[in-house]
Amino acid sequence: MQNIDPRSIIHAGSIRTFSTEHTQDAAAAASPRQGASSHGTRFDPWMSAYAQRADNLRESEIRALFAVASRPEVVSLAGGMPNIKDLPLRELAEGARKLIEQDGAQALQYGGGQGWEPFRESCCMVMAEEHIKADPADVVITTGSQQALDLVTQIFINPGDVILAESPSYVGALSVFTAYQAKVHHVPLDEHGLVPDALDDHIRHVRAQGGNIKFLYTCSGYHNPAGVPISLERRPQIVEICKRHHILILEDNPYGLLGFKGDIYPALYTFNPEGVIYLGTFSKIFAPGLRVGYAVAPPAIKAKLVLAAEAAILSPSMLAQMAIHHYLRDYDWKAQIEVYRAMYQERRDAMIEALQEYLPDCSYTVPEGGFYTWVGLPEGIDAKAMLPRAVTELVAYTSGTAFFSDGQGGDHMRLSFCYPPPEDIREGIRRLARVVDRERELVSMFGSRVIHQPDFSSNAPQPNLP
Amino acid sequence: MQNIDPRSIIHAGSIRTFSTEHTQDAAAAASPRQGASSHGTRFDPWMSAYAQRADNLRESEIRALFAVASRPEVVSLAGGMPNIKDLPLRELAEGARKLIEQDGAQALQYGGGQGWEPFRESCCMVMAEEHIKADPADVVITTGSQQALDLVTQIFINPGDVILAESPSYVGALSVFTAYQAKVHHVPLDEHGLVPDALDDHIRHVRAQGGNIKFLYTCSGYHNPAGVPISLERRPQIVEICKRHHILILEDNPYGLLGFKGDIYPALYTFNPEGVIYLGTFSKIFAPGLRVGYAVAPPAIKAKLVLAAEAAILSPSMLAQMAIHHYLRDYDWKAQIEVYRAMYQERRDAMIEALQEYLPDCSYTVPEGGFYTWVGLPEGIDAKAMLPRAVTELVAYTSGTAFFSDGQGGDHMRLSFCYPPPEDIREGIRRLARVVDRERELVSMFGSRVIHQPDFSSNAPQPNLP
Repeated sequence: MQNIDPRSIIHAGSIRTFSTEHTQDAAAAASPRQGASSHGTRFDPWMSAYAQRADNLRESEIRALFAVASRPEVVSLAGGMPNIKDLPLRELAEGARKLIEQDGAQALQYGGGQGWEPFRESCCMVMAEEHIKADPADVVITTGSQQALDLVTQIFINPGDVILAESPSYVGALSVFTAYQAKVHHVPLDEHGLVPDALDDHIRHVRAQGGNIKFLYTCSGYHNPAGVPISLERRPQIVEICKRHHILILEDNPYGLLGFKGDIYPALYTFNPEGVIYLGTFSKIFAPGLRVGYAVAPPAIKAKLVLAAEAAILSPSMLAQMAIHHYLRDYDWKAQIEVYRAMYQERRDAMIEALQEYLPDCSYTVPEGGFYTWVGLPEGIDAKAMLPRAVTELVAYTSGTAFFSDGQGGDHMRLSFCYPPPEDIREGIRRLARVVDRERELVSMFGSRVIHQPDFSSNAPQPNLP
Repeated sequence: MQNIDPRSIIHAGSIRTFSTEHTQDAAAAASPRQGASSHGTRFDPWMSAYAQRADNLRESEIRALFAVASRPEVVSLAGGMPNIKDLPLRELAEGARKLIEQDGAQALQYGGGQGWEPFRESCCMVMAEEHIKADPADVVITTGSQQALDLVTQIFINPGDVILAESPSYVGALSVFTAYQAKVHHVPLDEHGLVPDALDDHIRHVRAQGGNIKFLYTCSGYHNPAGVPISLERRPQIVEICKRHHILILEDNPYGLLGFKGDIYPALYTFNPEGVIYLGTFSKIFAPGLRVGYAVAPPAIKAKLVLAAEAAILSPSMLAQMAIHHYLRDYDWKAQIEVYRAMYQERRDAMIEALQEYLPDCSYTVPEGGFYTWVGLPEGIDAKAMLPRAVTELVAYTSGTAFFSDGQGGDHMRLSFCYPPPEDIREGIRRLARVVDRERELVSMFGSRVIHQPDFSSNAPQPNLP
């Protein structure tokens, strides 16, 4: 054994020109199974080595549905993929060409962990649409909003801590919260969004039971999956309740600019910038393939988010940041949002009309923005149990159970109108109606197939307390 | 309070056209400080809410140095930014234009969480250069190798678990390990890389003391920061030792294809695919601004990595994956690596010649590949304490302390020859020599300024045991 001699010059790597044959043979001798490791099922030799948190990584229902949705014969009302076919691809292509030709040495290089300052200013310009006056110094660029959810959860959640979330709540957030071993406590929402009085009650209740509430997670705009925004009246009330109880708010707002009538609600952030982390994204107002979102946070939290972001990915993509920066600078991005609004409104209309025609005894929200409607099924029908039968009929949706951390939601499903064209939406609902009809016959013959049927008629805290 | 009535159609979002004035006033009334939140220093009201792991997020020394390095008058030998000025920007620009014009609807859309399959095949093609025969099904695309480090650590490390790492070890990996509250135990390396006998000794020693070793982290190629690869002889020995002790290997290999003489060592992975997670990246053989890396792992670990990746970012950038896929398909990417090798070799030569001329009583590795040389300072000089004085003289480096988890390394510094042109490297070393000379005078007058001076002459386990 010999350590580096600190007093001599060392020539490293003096062995050279190994032939491919030589090393392939060596590798083959050492491990005849190389290249075949993914075939067959076998015992996981690292089973005992995983961290506790690895047990909490679950296959999300959305993920399984990505595979289903990709089959062309299936009408998928399941995913949340935006329809970006109307983007001006030729102009974007020319913009990308110019960007790389003129600024490629910067666009293809590492950048700072917090994100490129001119782009952080652009994000502030977009946020101004929601009446947010943010300082670019308080903005952190993230790899989509999902990364922001991950980083915020990472810096706040010890195993067993409580996160308050709407009932129902975004499945991707629930995945993160579960991965960090948080306990999610659902708070009711109604047609005006999260219910302030219920929030107040639930906070007291959770604390009375010893729960350590770290933050309220809310999708404040056109809600995923419920389709409703928090009303103008309730926004300051909710902020005030959280302020009084010293509870941070994590405001996730991917759909806020996609109100079909151009309604833009002031962000919760505007009412108390020191008590709210605001998350925005370009995935829905521009395109998701660049994976760019942003977080605005009180300065001390922002500093921790930057450190966490650096540990996670070093720095966000300069190419993606500069591409969107140029898009916002060179194109009429607000006109593009108008195009999106009109297109999604037409699809919403197609879905609601089809629901009225084919599923008249289901309840559903009629969203004024966003991508989703939240559909209550006729009594006794379970969304999760029905899903495989729906896929057999070539239509997919997301079971309401995906939007709860505790198995609730089987009496609802989320229908997305964002991706399929109107005629496919109509056909999808027609197929879905056949499935529901058959399901209803089975229920009337053999009784309820509902596995979980929690009481939604009361605002009483649900039994998922810490 | 009223919940969603499951039997009625609800029209959401009926309030509309809030004037900007109105809501700005509302916001101002609710919070007169909006927009001013980042100014001034004040008590952090969320101090008590952070998770324990948030305490472990530290400002990396590399991060602080990014700011210094960006001042044009400073010769930075500190950062690890590749020099990408020689990339064929006009051709890449035209490639990006075509990609977006022809496949924009796919490139700008969400993709699968594991990464795009054709691109995973491309990664296998690149890995084949290191004699790896990987199955695309076992590959996970990540946002740079850094994200792979984060995900692997996340799924394996409970607070207090032990990670074995080289002595010294990559600062960005140490940041991640620390964030997850791992104990890092350093194992010696010498001019032939990680020392097998020492590894064996340290494993026994750590286990005898009750330490729970989760994996060995090694930068197997041209090492960051030491500059040396693990020798051909030692590779199967190290794999065998880990196999015998049932310890997983995390092999991080950003520089493996950047051997100046074209030497390519077979990856540790080739000797035992079931016991090694291999990390690759396009940051050094192409460009870092797209933030694309990849991990190859045994199938069960791969499945957990995909779930963790989805929770973290949903899916990697399709645009970045497709851009690199097309680059590998349409350009002579191996010729570009040759260009890089020649360019970095010229810079390595400039650095070594300048070290010989200006700093003859320092020790240093003469790397045959990669970006870095590891420099031992004359006795009594402390790299960390000297750094501010070096920056005053307009030269920057990274203190050796950045590459240890326990304060060791003050008698070394890492010098990067990757980014500045040869004449700047020469000038930088000339300035550095002035600083070292002055420091030496101070030491001879006032005694040693070294704060930490561990014993490097022995392979005995260092005192950072669990």
